[in-house]
Amino acid sequence: MQVESTPSVVREIVRTARRDRAVVGVVPTMGALHAGHVSLIERARTECDFVVATIFVNPTQFGPNEDFSKYPRTMEQDLEMCKNADADLVFTPDTSQMYTADAETVVKVTQLTSRLEGAVRPTHFDGVTTVVAKLFNITDPDKAFFGQKDFQQQLVIRRMVADLDWGIEIVTCPIVREADGLAMSSRNRYLSAEERQRSLVLSQSLQLGKKLALETAATPAEIERQMQDLILATDGVVLDYAVVLSADSLLPLQNRPDSAVALVAARLGATRLIDNQILQFR
Amino acid sequence: MQVESTPSVVREIVRTARRDRAVVGVVPTMGALHAGHVSLIERARTECDFVVATIFVNPTQFGPNEDFSKYPRTMEQDLEMCKNADADLVFTPDTSQMYTADAETVVKVTQLTSRLEGAVRPTHFDGVTTVVAKLFNITDPDKAFFGQKDFQQQLVIRRMVADLDWGIEIVTCPIVREADGLAMSSRNRYLSAEERQRSLVLSQSLQLGKKLALETAATPAEIERQMQDLILATDGVVLDYAVVLSADSLLPLQNRPDSAVALVAARLGATRLIDNQILQFR
Repeated sequence: MQVESTPSVVREIVRTARRDRAVVGVVPTMGALHAGHVSLIERARTECDFVVATIFVNPTQFGPNEDFSKYPRTMEQDLEMCKNADADLVFTPDTSQMYTADAETVVKVTQLTSRLEGAVRPTHFDGVTTVVAKLFNITDPDKAFFGQKDFQQQLVIRRMVADLDWGIEIVTCPIVREADGLAMSSRNRYLSAEERQRSLVLSQSLQLGKKLALETAATPAEIERQMQDLILATDGVVLDYAVVLSADSLLPLQNRPDSAVALVAARLGATRLIDNQILQFR
Repeated sequence: MQVESTPSVVREIVRTARRDRAVVGVVPTMGALHAGHVSLIERARTECDFVVATIFVNPTQFGPNEDFSKYPRTMEQDLEMCKNADADLVFTPDTSQMYTADAETVVKVTQLTSRLEGAVRPTHFDGVTTVVAKLFNITDPDKAFFGQKDFQQQLVIRRMVADLDWGIEIVTCPIVREADGLAMSSRNRYLSAEERQRSLVLSQSLQLGKKLALETAATPAEIERQMQDLILATDGVVLDYAVVLSADSLLPLQNRPDSAVALVAARLGATRLIDNQILQFR
């Protein structure tokens, strides 16, 4: 496994791999890897000849009062996990290699980013789409692998790739959960023991939504209400949203659809968690 | 020479060429080709193994009161000129192949676009950078060729390519002029005989600027003033700007620099023309 921090070197390595007709896959990450990230690299390994993981804590996708400076940096373990998952190359740029002082270009998905995470974190998705555009240009992949955990993010990336004709296949991989249901997240390590216990209400609310869709005649609006009630009844959990929306557009649904996505976001102390679940309606 | 209108087909043709290690060059145009465009294709021919010209009148770079609907469409002659200049492939998408109804992604250079053409045409450069990003993703070039005539445009494209790590070399080619000095432009055909005569004051003002820089001690501000006076003294020519700025940043210059760019824009009836000239200071 090669580890490289210089964009032009990474570009050359991938170019050489492509000359041998390798199918190239990229797994963009911010490091602090967990089993969810590993599942992305493993999936890329099964579908691609040359697998690039990227590790870059991207400052532009954090808001001014968010956790950029304290975001976990665990490079040594991250590289070990990439190696065990059989990545070919890990791209580990530092901020000065990704952003020059005079950079002034932004890639913006204008509509899909206005709600949910985009409403709570107004500059977040501009930071995500711009850095992912850069990572796509540096690593020139055929396929890119993202986790369903950041559901809106993978939709936004899909929109960007389609709109800008990138010709990259976006593969969304299932959420990996702890045994008790908590979705894996680099931010889970922020939780106190008490918050960790309380956090279970997020996945429980999604299980409730799944059950209501599959086993009752409840409408999306009724399901939302029951999910919200469950979360609001939990001490120390501040609800940002619990909604049931179109999984393609994140727009509200009329009546009962065939399927939908339930998305939740909540804060536990200083830690903000998100989770989601595809719902099938009976 | 192949002519293709479908993005995915063009992508496959270029991919095949790249497998043979071809250096790929692209010349993006809006058609209505003239000797300036031909010089770009010829330059690409000398520097690249596989030359793609694109012909697409991009609606998103025209303002609501601009000349999109009457912009000259001369496809048959355009293809003949591409063939004579020895292009390998011409990409001729229609609007529905470039923009789906649900497209919502924009590539935005935020600072360099705020003045000059960007001030007069507020949405113009967002349209340019977004469509060029798409054309780059479809044609996957090593080099892209633009005319110096659109001086701010080539700077904006350079900025975008650097900021988004595209790894594409931008080659800016000299302005091609009519025998009497008028810079070649697809819009020159709009000019009446009288306007055609009056239009010469643009290139004359640039020649004046060049001479003042080279042969006198005039400052950029003094040169601007003399250029403006010359244009303002011409009946039927409405001056948008005549300025002498840094050729790298388009920012104002203090004192006398080693070199600079003089840029002019003016309207003759309904037709808007631009021109520019690099100045060397004695």
